[in-house]
Amino acid sequence: MIIRTVKGSVHTMLQRTKRFLIGKPLKTSALKGEKLGVVWGLPILSSDAISSVAYAGQEMLIVLIPAIGVLAYSQITILSGCIIGLLFLLMISYRQTIDCYPGGGGAFVVAKENIGVTAGMVAGAALAVDYILTVAVSISSGVEQVTSAFGFMKPYAVVFAVAMVILLMIGNLRGIRESSKLFGIPAYAFIVGILALIVFGTFKLMTGFEPPKPNLDPIEPLKTISILIMLKAFASGCTALTGIEAVSNAVPNFKDPAPKHAKTVLLLLSMIILVLFGGTAILATHYQVVPGDNGAMLILMAQEIFGKTFMYYYITATTFIILILAANTAYAGFPMLIAVMSKENFAPKQLSRRGDKLSFDNGIVVLSLISILLIVAFKANVSHLIGLYAIGVFISFTLSQSGMFLRWRRLKEKNWHWKAAVNGTGAVVTGIVVCVIAVAKFTEGSWIVVVLIPVMVFLINKVYIHYMATKEQLKLSEAELSELDFSKKSYTNRIIVPIENINRASVRALRYANMICDNVTAFHVSVDEEGAKSIQDDFAKLNTNIPLVVKLSPYRKVVEPLMRFIESAEYDYEEGDMITVLMADIEPHKGWQNILHSRTRLYVERKLLKHKHIVVSAMPLQLRDDKYFLKFKKAKPTKDKHNK
Amino acid sequence: MIIRTVKGSVHTMLQRTKRFLIGKPLKTSALKGEKLGVVWGLPILSSDAISSVAYAGQEMLIVLIPAIGVLAYSQITILSGCIIGLLFLLMISYRQTIDCYPGGGGAFVVAKENIGVTAGMVAGAALAVDYILTVAVSISSGVEQVTSAFGFMKPYAVVFAVAMVILLMIGNLRGIRESSKLFGIPAYAFIVGILALIVFGTFKLMTGFEPPKPNLDPIEPLKTISILIMLKAFASGCTALTGIEAVSNAVPNFKDPAPKHAKTVLLLLSMIILVLFGGTAILATHYQVVPGDNGAMLILMAQEIFGKTFMYYYITATTFIILILAANTAYAGFPMLIAVMSKENFAPKQLSRRGDKLSFDNGIVVLSLISILLIVAFKANVSHLIGLYAIGVFISFTLSQSGMFLRWRRLKEKNWHWKAAVNGTGAVVTGIVVCVIAVAKFTEGSWIVVVLIPVMVFLINKVYIHYMATKEQLKLSEAELSELDFSKKSYTNRIIVPIENINRASVRALRYANMICDNVTAFHVSVDEEGAKSIQDDFAKLNTNIPLVVKLSPYRKVVEPLMRFIESAEYDYEEGDMITVLMADIEPHKGWQNILHSRTRLYVERKLLKHKHIVVSAMPLQLRDDKYFLKFKKAKPTKDKHNK
Repeated sequence: MIIRTVKGSVHTMLQRTKRFLIGKPLKTSALKGEKLGVVWGLPILSSDAISSVAYAGQEMLIVLIPAIGVLAYSQITILSGCIIGLLFLLMISYRQTIDCYPGGGGAFVVAKENIGVTAGMVAGAALAVDYILTVAVSISSGVEQVTSAFGFMKPYAVVFAVAMVILLMIGNLRGIRESSKLFGIPAYAFIVGILALIVFGTFKLMTGFEPPKPNLDPIEPLKTISILIMLKAFASGCTALTGIEAVSNAVPNFKDPAPKHAKTVLLLLSMIILVLFGGTAILATHYQVVPGDNGAMLILMAQEIFGKTFMYYYITATTFIILILAANTAYAGFPMLIAVMSKENFAPKQLSRRGDKLSFDNGIVVLSLISILLIVAFKANVSHLIGLYAIGVFISFTLSQSGMFLRWRRLKEKNWHWKAAVNGTGAVVTGIVVCVIAVAKFTEGSWIVVVLIPVMVFLINKVYIHYMATKEQLKLSEAELSELDFSKKSYTNRIIVPIENINRASVRALRYANMICDNVTAFHVSVDEEGAKSIQDDFAKLNTNIPLVVKLSPYRKVVEPLMRFIESAEYDYEEGDMITVLMADIEPHKGWQNILHSRTRLYVERKLLKHKHIVVSAMPLQLRDDKYFLKFKKAKPTKDKHNK
Repeated sequence: MIIRTVKGSVHTMLQRTKRFLIGKPLKTSALKGEKLGVVWGLPILSSDAISSVAYAGQEMLIVLIPAIGVLAYSQITILSGCIIGLLFLLMISYRQTIDCYPGGGGAFVVAKENIGVTAGMVAGAALAVDYILTVAVSISSGVEQVTSAFGFMKPYAVVFAVAMVILLMIGNLRGIRESSKLFGIPAYAFIVGILALIVFGTFKLMTGFEPPKPNLDPIEPLKTISILIMLKAFASGCTALTGIEAVSNAVPNFKDPAPKHAKTVLLLLSMIILVLFGGTAILATHYQVVPGDNGAMLILMAQEIFGKTFMYYYITATTFIILILAANTAYAGFPMLIAVMSKENFAPKQLSRRGDKLSFDNGIVVLSLISILLIVAFKANVSHLIGLYAIGVFISFTLSQSGMFLRWRRLKEKNWHWKAAVNGTGAVVTGIVVCVIAVAKFTEGSWIVVVLIPVMVFLINKVYIHYMATKEQLKLSEAELSELDFSKKSYTNRIIVPIENINRASVRALRYANMICDNVTAFHVSVDEEGAKSIQDDFAKLNTNIPLVVKLSPYRKVVEPLMRFIESAEYDYEEGDMITVLMADIEPHKGWQNILHSRTRLYVERKLLKHKHIVVSAMPLQLRDDKYFLKFKKAKPTKDKHNK
């Protein structure tokens, strides 16, 4: 009861805090932004994809080294080759999607339109899960880079990561996109840094530098290269491919001809990943670093190659920034995805509401809260989070490619056989990868995603059915519209005024009721005979012919006696008549004063709204500021009222 | 936004949980209970007072031993003598209060009636603080007894204490008083146990038993008996007197002649405290136990006297139970005090609302939450909590005695000089004790209470002024009542129907408005011209002469354009006319579905209620269960809507 009434004042306070953090609201017309060319489109859309260089290779090593020792460094080359092959298959597939969906070809849209509603729901759920993990993994990895370089920060990793999420949340609620070109620079800075690392590292090796051998446990090597270990490492490495779908989702953001620009960006992006991911993987086999508790792979290599010079800190800083920007892409993608789903009735409508800064506020807040939960639960540990990652994005790859395959088969355009083959191969391969990740990482957390996605689909389906059912019930057919007759008075209106006692507010309500209607009943619920008698006496003084009905309610119930009265023979209610229940209320001058009033009205209202043919009206009496009545403070105490 | 709409379904869930925990509701007429005689009145009203034997003496030792070593055991006799003197002064004073206030003479009532409203507020605040501390201290002490006997439970002391508070809360919400005679037995059991301890302990000493000397640090004794240490120990010992006011508050619960019975109980209670508190204090000087980390004083003595026999566990158990019952008395006292204050406009009205079991539910919950907070913050440590305790109860003693003194002086009854002298002495002495506790325990926490009580009085005063101001504004004078004329139609009623789009719900609202009023306007807010055009086209199909007003709102505001329209010349509003804003709404079939609807209505309603001459009406359309519409699930996906 108290909690409910405190809400009013808390609301005002929250409003003010919000205004301070978020800034002034924006007009809807400010929505159209600048279009991107190749030069800026590439870095802005690529941060998620290229930043995975910071963890994908490293996580493969973390799986392999404890199992097969130094042999890990040779196996990683093979696995990286497979992943790069997968990258080019996806690149070619997605270039075809861009051509077909110049309006933006997210997996949700492609799957829903070409496979079916359920496939769309699965793709939506999978993508939503993956956006959340992009935030959790990227931020955790960013923090890991920094704590690798500055060891003293290690104990504060979780706090640091949570703070970064909150910063991103506030930034995005403020509408961070306004200055989006700025976000292109760090991507180039990162690319330059990693290229320098690869070139300089190779040069150092060629000029005779011998990196120190890692101190690994001696293990019988041949016996232990199991398929499962290789698959686990492969599954970790597949995280390098997350973010590649960003370009095809964002086609409408490009300058004309948009599909051409988008395809060029996708090609360039793939080349960059090839060089950076491949380059660092090969370098790692020579430098034989052991990432994990010692620090992150890139930072360890940077230390061996550059020492603690400017370039070492440059690589730490740019890697950190690109990872934060990668998380930021999820802040654009997740709310947009949810908003699109919400507009098509797959998610609560509130999620498609634009906030003051035109961002989808509720989506941003939901994304932040769940990411924080994950970061805290997994202690900002990339290796632990990675088990959940990538499976979502590969599910969406599979559905998107399958959708494209079905589309080619259906439309049978020019060269469709060839194009269907590309997408079909993509679908089969990514489908296999889904199974590989689900099985290989099952105990490491992929089971959570495997369970979560069906649950989400179930809920999305519930939401969808509810909105469809609601729509059907609200729809007026043409026939019904044409039959509408506003001149016909088809039923009687009656008013019931529940009164607690006779005061200015209740009398005002009675008079208003009397004015707008000929059938008014005053209604009072009393816990005992004494109270009943008292209200009847007071009511008699009003000199009105409005009837007063008093009911006893020994259990202190309010709504039930009223409903019983309406249904009783005493109240000659006729089927079809409307009953307006008019409740007097008082509206305090200041928000905090709401906690001093019991708000029975809201309680009664919530119950009455469930009944057909009842309209609930509130007639508030606005109170003046208490300071006009300060004289009461000086009132004499009531002396000896209870005793002689 | 989401939080607000989730509330509906959470509410239903909470309701069910509540019914399970609390049981079925009771009729108001079940309120009158059994009256008490001396035999049952004594134990039932004394648990708070006699249970302090478990901590008052011990806490004096805990102050003295580290400061003055073995000398502590001689000083404690002097201090106990002072406290027992104080006890008898209070007993005589309160017997006089009982005579004058047969209706119950709590400090709040006595101070308010005889000194003034502010004194009443101070007494109320002080008592409220003390009830909360009674729960925190008694429960913590009870748990301490158990962990003294069963050492393995020590790490779980806080959890155990919090669990006890929650049990008491649920018990009291269920209306624990129904079986109150049961609560008398443990008090007698405790008294018997402690008497046995004293008798047996003395016997053992007389038959030549030499208790082991405590291993205390050698300290220069004479140098260190400072006044401050003695005052600190005295302040801790004063907690023995808390709970003594319970009898005078509860006079109406006694059988006739109630005052006589109450006075007898008070006398007997004082004798019992004299024997138990005095006896255990003297025994402690001979057995020289060192309470603290080793365990509680009573349990340590029981171990030396009885060994680990039945009596040892009997004393542990009865001490634990009596302490829990002491906390339970606060559960009767606090909600009742708050309810009395609330009825006299000093606290939010919700606190005087009786729950299903006729208990003051909100007061019980508030008491539990604050006690849990204190227990957690002070880690269930009695020695830390004791610094805050007793000061509140002594403030209320002082105010109550001063009130009685002023009452004698004013009424000048027979023997008033003598009676005024008793209460006057009581007021002066307890006033001095308040200062002693405040100063001696300042750094140990009494400063919290010293700061808190004025803050509470400030708030109570704010609440009081607000209720008085509200009352004044609601009051209808006799003159106004006699001038009331229900037949005169003094103003015009107008209806504005805000519509989002044309559907069954909004058309129903328009028709209802049209039926009850001749002046109806439909109102729509659109973010852009496109939306405006669309609603105008749809509205035209309705074939009604209700005018539609469409306003653009680029910042997506809803209420502001409506208010601007009402105040504009376009709407020929005349001062004094009532405007009914009628909003169509949909009411989902199931609670959880509320989160799928944006509830703009509630938001708009809250804003509109601040405006004079506006009545807010809600016309809900009840949705049917979604299962009637499951066929929509099988609807074909919309194929290729966005692309060729």
